[in-house]
Parts: sequence; C-alpha cells; structure tokens
Amino acid sequence: MLAPGSTIGILGGGQLGRMLALAAARLGLCCHIFAPDPESPAFDVVAARTIAEYDDGRALAAFAAAVDVVTYEFENVPVGAVERIGMTVQVRPGAKALAISQDRVAEKSFLRDLGVAVAPFAEVADRPSLDRAIGALGLPAVLKTRRLGYDGKGQAVIRWADEAGAALDRMHGAPAILERFVAFQREISVIAVRGAGGGVAIYDPAENGHRNGILHTSTVPARITAATAAKTGEIAAALLAALDYVGALGVEFFVAGEGGEETLLVNEIAPRVHNSGHWTEDACAVSQFENHVRAVAGWPLGPSARHADVAMTNLIGAEADDWARLAAEPGARLHLYGKREMRPGRKMGHVNRLAKPR
Amino acid sequence: MLAPGSTIGILGGGQLGRMLALAAARLGLCCHIFAPDPESPAFDVVAARTIAEYDDGRALAAFAAAVDVVTYEFENVPVGAVERIGMTVQVRPGAKALAISQDRVAEKSFLRDLGVAVAPFAEVADRPSLDRAIGALGLPAVLKTRRLGYDGKGQAVIRWADEAGAALDRMHGAPAILERFVAFQREISVIAVRGAGGGVAIYDPAENGHRNGILHTSTVPARITAATAAKTGEIAAALLAALDYVGALGVEFFVAGEGGEETLLVNEIAPRVHNSGHWTEDACAVSQFENHVRAVAGWPLGPSARHADVAMTNLIGAEADDWARLAAEPGARLHLYGKREMRPGRKMGHVNRLAKPR
Repeated sequence: MLAPGSTIGILGGGQLGRMLALAAARLGLCCHIFAPDPESPAFDVVAARTIAEYDDGRALAAFAAAVDVVTYEFENVPVGAVERIGMTVQVRPGAKALAISQDRVAEKSFLRDLGVAVAPFAEVADRPSLDRAIGALGLPAVLKTRRLGYDGKGQAVIRWADEAGAALDRMHGAPAILERFVAFQREISVIAVRGAGGGVAIYDPAENGHRNGILHTSTVPARITAATAAKTGEIAAALLAALDYVGALGVEFFVAGEGGEETLLVNEIAPRVHNSGHWTEDACAVSQFENHVRAVAGWPLGPSARHADVAMTNLIGAEADDWARLAAEPGARLHLYGKREMRPGRKMGHVNRLAKPR
Repeated sequence: MLAPGSTIGILGGGQLGRMLALAAARLGLCCHIFAPDPESPAFDVVAARTIAEYDDGRALAAFAAAVDVVTYEFENVPVGAVERIGMTVQVRPGAKALAISQDRVAEKSFLRDLGVAVAPFAEVADRPSLDRAIGALGLPAVLKTRRLGYDGKGQAVIRWADEAGAALDRMHGAPAILERFVAFQREISVIAVRGAGGGVAIYDPAENGHRNGILHTSTVPARITAATAAKTGEIAAALLAALDYVGALGVEFFVAGEGGEETLLVNEIAPRVHNSGHWTEDACAVSQFENHVRAVAGWPLGPSARHADVAMTNLIGAEADDWARLAAEPGARLHLYGKREMRPGRKMGHVNRLAKPR
C-alpha cells in the first residue's frame, strides 16, 4: 500500500486525469501528470507536471523516477512508453490490457478466446480481404480501423456490397476490422475495478445514449433484466481476472432482444476510468475515480453501491455555455473540466441528475 | 457570476483552502493560493501559488492583480492585508466580518447589539479591570485573549478569586475578555452560506465533541429539539444579513437546558468554512466548500439538504497513522490533507461515517 504523501504518475492530462487527481487528493495522495499539451486540464489540479511527448525517452525516464506508481487515463498511450516506464516503476493497469484495447482485432480475439460473446469479425487489410470478410460475415457490417478509433471516428457502415470500396477508402489505408452489424436494443456499460489484492468492485450497469457518435447520456438503472445486469458483472469480473488487472475497466455491451430473451455481446473494453461511469461521482459513496486510485495505490477498494437513481448528461462543445442555468438547477450536479478552449464535439463537462432517494 | 476558467484567490494554504480548491476545480474554476509556508497542503492541488508573508505588500498586490475574486480560509489573516487587496479586487466575505471575528470583544458586542444571546462578558486590560469584571460577572468565568485564540489556546478558567492572578499571567499581557462560564448541555454549530444575490443555504446543526480543546467529533443530527434547530438557522440567517455577508459562516452555540427548556447562546462565529461542517462533503449533494465557492464566485447556491445521518471524526496527530484500517472500513469516507509532517495536535484528516439511509 502506498502511504499518504506518495505520488501517482498519470499518463494523459484530460478530464479523466483531472478527476483522478481530485480523487487522489482527497486521500492525501499526490499526482504527477505527464501530457504533451501545455493546456491539459489536469495540470490545474496538481503540483507536479511534465509537458512532453509520449515518445520522449528522457522525459519518460525522469517521470518514472519521480513517482511511486504509474497509471494512464486514455488507451492510446504508446505501449512502448508504458513498457519503458514499467522497467522502473509499476504501471497499473499494465501494458497487456493497453495493447489489447488498442487493437480491435486483438481485443475481439481476446474476448472470443475467453468465451465472451462478441459480434462476428474478420481482419481487413485490403480490398480482397474485405470482400472475403463480407462473404463470410454477411451485410450489413461495420468497417473500423483496428487502432486509434474513438467516439465513432474511423468507422463506416456497409449496407450493400457496392459500398465496400468507399468504406475502405475512409480507412485511409489503415489496417481494419469488419464486424457484423448488431441489431441491438440498447447499449449498456459496466465499470469494474480490481484491487492489487484481487478484490473486485463492480458498479451497476448504465444505459448509454449517443449523439453524433459521442456518448450523450448514461442512465442508471439500465432498462435490462436483473439476470442481464448480473451477467454483465460476471463477464466484467472474468475479464479483470483474465487480464490480471489492477484498476478500473470499462466494458461496453450491446443488448439484443428484450425481457427473458435478452442476449449480451461485448462491444469493447477500455482499460481506464470511463465516461459512462461519471455518474458514480454523485450517486455512490466511492466513485470510479477513487476506486481506480485505491487500486493503483494498492489500497483496499471502497464499496460500489449506488444510493440513488441517476442520469449523467455530457456537455459537448457549446452545451457547456449553459453552465449558469445548470448551476442554478437544484437537482443538477455540475462538473466542468476547466478546458480553456471550446471546440465543437469537445467534452467540456457533465451533469449528474439524481432521482430523489426511494 | 465568474465564468468557468476564472481564478479565485485564497488567503491561507491549510486543509480548508485545499478542500475549497478541490470544490472549485469540480466547477471548472481555478484557485491561486497565497500562504507563507512552502509546505502548505493546499499548494498540492492548484496550478498557481504565492509563497509570501501576509504583510508582504508587493506579493499581495501581485496576487490581487492575478485573480478575479479573493476569499480567506482562516480568520487570522491580517485585516490590513484584506483591506489592501480589497482596493484591487473584491474580497468575500469582506473585511468587516474578519475584523469582528478577530476580536472577541468586538464579536460579542456585535452579537449582543443584534439581540443575539451571548454569555455575559467584560473587557480585561489589567488586574483592576479583571477584578471589576469578576465582581460584575461572578465566578466561575473564563479569561480569554481577545485575539488569535483557537482550539482552546489562550484560555484560562477562573473558579475562585485567588486564581485570577495566575489566569491573567497566562494572557502574557495581551488584551483579554472575561466571559461568565456557561454550564451548557452541549455545543452545536451551524454552517450558513449567503450568496452574492442574497440567497441563503443553511445546513443542519451538528453536535460537537472536543478533546484537549480541539474539535473531535461532529454528529448530525444534534440531540436538540426541532425548535432549537430552527432557531439556530434563524440566528445564523440574521448574522449573515447583518454582516451583508457573502460566503460560508460557522456559528458555534452553547445549548443550556434540555427538551422544552433548551436555551441557546452564541459562543463564537468563524467567517469561513468550518471543521464542524466537514460532514457536508459526504452527507449532502453540495458541501460547505462548494457552496462557499459558489457564493464567492457569485453563483447561485446549491441545496444544503442532508441525505443521511453522519458522524465526522477528526484525525489528530498520530491518529492519521490509522489510515490503512480506515481505508478498509466500508462505511468510512476518509479524507487526508496531505500534510508532510505529523505533529501532536495537528489536524491531519477526518473521517465521515454515514448511517444507512432511512
């Protein structure tokens, strides 16, 4: 267990790093943020920061020497950087979960090999392999870049065979994956945390709504059966164990069918705290951020129980201009990320609205 | 209303400043901490800091020029510093509340003149005035320095007339006040917040227990009648209005008698967030820290409703060494202040324990 006063290094300086640092401060732990952008919002809430690129070996070495443990707040940190740091200081979660989540083919293969249901998929390198994949999986299907996709970027739906060429062009030559289109009823996600001692805390599943490919709302409880909710927790726990994971893991599911007919597919995993878990800040005694910090610091996890129904709404771009009205809404818990520049599509904050306790 | 991204200057770098800065960060507001001690715990959670003495005019001027509004986190900030800053930028709460709370005679006179019940008191400058005060008030009584007292320091109980000389010696020549000893049943306190627009949020009264003159526990609800609880809120609201106050005010009361016979005396006021309000962090949607930030920033106040019964326990000195056990206690919400050095009597953190929701 890291004693209070110890320093957690965080790769990445966005809002997730910021909220992790705020949770750590409450426990008397310090954070050192490593990020390339001098305007990183997480810099505002820590005493130690490194402004450098993720491939700057000297900066990474100095960072590793200055901290007691390292974590990351986004999954596109270069695996090489994490491996390099890992030679000096423990990185939680480790490079394995990062590598798997960075490559959709590796991710889907990992899930399938574990016996977790995923949409049928095939690797796509070029036009012939795309045509073979379409033949094997059928249409409609979704073509995605294997790497660096998020918030719906780098994706193209193929409904008819003659759309294949245009979809492939949108990959700009990057290695891709074709996934059979899943006619799902809803998308849900679960935040699961595993401590260094193997203890596990699993939050209730949230039901997610998207707009323009970006998460818009997470509502808890999700409109799913108790059996399906329990199954999401079982799957998440199995993933944590298989990855020998330490920290918070976000698991996104598609739910097909309804009622007794519900079936679950895992869509993707994120080896970090997750936007669809922001509701835990106000509806749980211990948030996903604090539990990730506890895990990374080797502390026992806190309870993941929820004390109220809750709906989280992201504030995207100019929606954050509405801050004054939201600040005056009695039931709204406003969170703003301190980003200097508003850009369309940029996550500027979120609001948690709690239902009255039942 | 200060827009997100604005900077609140905070005079003082202790745990109260630290928790204010954490609350401000959540709302997208920045903080700049001004404190003399380079190891101030609040420095760890902000991007802007000034290490200087409170009488350093140049540092105060630069600080005032760098921030959008100023507040303070302890009441012994020199009034001159606040007045100097106030020429450049708004200080909330203002110099008046600070001046009153720094001088027990001014404080008690202010309360008495407002019609608020206080223990009978008299100024003491020397032995003759002490003897006159004893004659007028009777014994037992408590002799206190007029200024710079906190956590029971600078106080002496006089039970018999022949203890008067020794008690006066303990004042070391400082101007003093004699207060008639109040045989109180319990000590309670209320945190009341007033917004820049005049809106008021009042938290439930807490019942306080002390050890060695230092606050040890605050328990909510206090064991008082509903009528007494309501009366504390009315008195606090009257004080906020009389001071044209903006921010959080702590009001300490003695409760004499029990049941229908309860009577209230105000013991003292603190023009800041208060240790006996730390329970609001975990038992309310909006804590005293966030509501103080909202008030200082000119934002509307958030609700002060309490969602659970709660007991706050301070971690004094070596009690904080128990952090690992407390971190593992499921119902305990642990807060540590990141203080580098443990000293006997030093407040190192606190724990909030919530009762199950009813």
